[in-house]
Amino acid sequence: MTLSCPPDCPVQKTARIIDGKWTILILRDLLNEKMRFSELQRSLAGVSPKVLSARLKFLESEGILTRTLFPSVPPRTEYELTPLGEKLQHVISAMAQFGDEI
Amino acid sequence: MTLSCPPDCPVQKTARIIDGKWTILILRDLLNEKMRFSELQRSLAGVSPKVLSARLKFLESEGILTRTLFPSVPPRTEYELTPLGEKLQHVISAMAQFGDEI
Repeated sequence: MTLSCPPDCPVQKTARIIDGKWTILILRDLLNEKMRFSELQRSLAGVSPKVLSARLKFLESEGILTRTLFPSVPPRTEYELTPLGEKLQHVISAMAQFGDEI
Repeated sequence: MTLSCPPDCPVQKTARIIDGKWTILILRDLLNEKMRFSELQRSLAGVSPKVLSARLKFLESEGILTRTLFPSVPPRTEYELTPLGEKLQHVISAMAQFGDEI
């Protein structure tokens, strides 16, 4: 019988970060290239600005992505994965491979 | 710029199935062995029976696991991954690997 996962269960730690379909889709997009908020919103059709903003802030706080504000007119914000965030590529690739088979 | 993912985006298809931390933890457990409802409930400390039951039914409807009812006293129900469900091992392994690094 599998016992309870300890608090530092690695699967659980990753699950906490990639929880929710929007987060996974944000990662999928940013693994390709850095993107602006408006580009992400367009790609993740159906996401509300509030939810998207909250997910981006969460991922930033976890060290998965960085947010860069360019003082242009109008201001431009770009999101880019950190080296840690890029390591999620294996997770997203495995998901893509599974999704191809169903 | 990444365009909207088509409806059959493989990452999105997988995300729909493994959405939510409980589902991921159910898969993690069942990748080791088949389990009873009570065993899963104990392993997923904090999950409500209602939520666990709903996630198991969803995964069954998606062909990810099978439910077998043994007519013992009291009745015993076992959950086991299908060959399709076992293919999610790559996703869970990649998550474990990432979780080990954070």
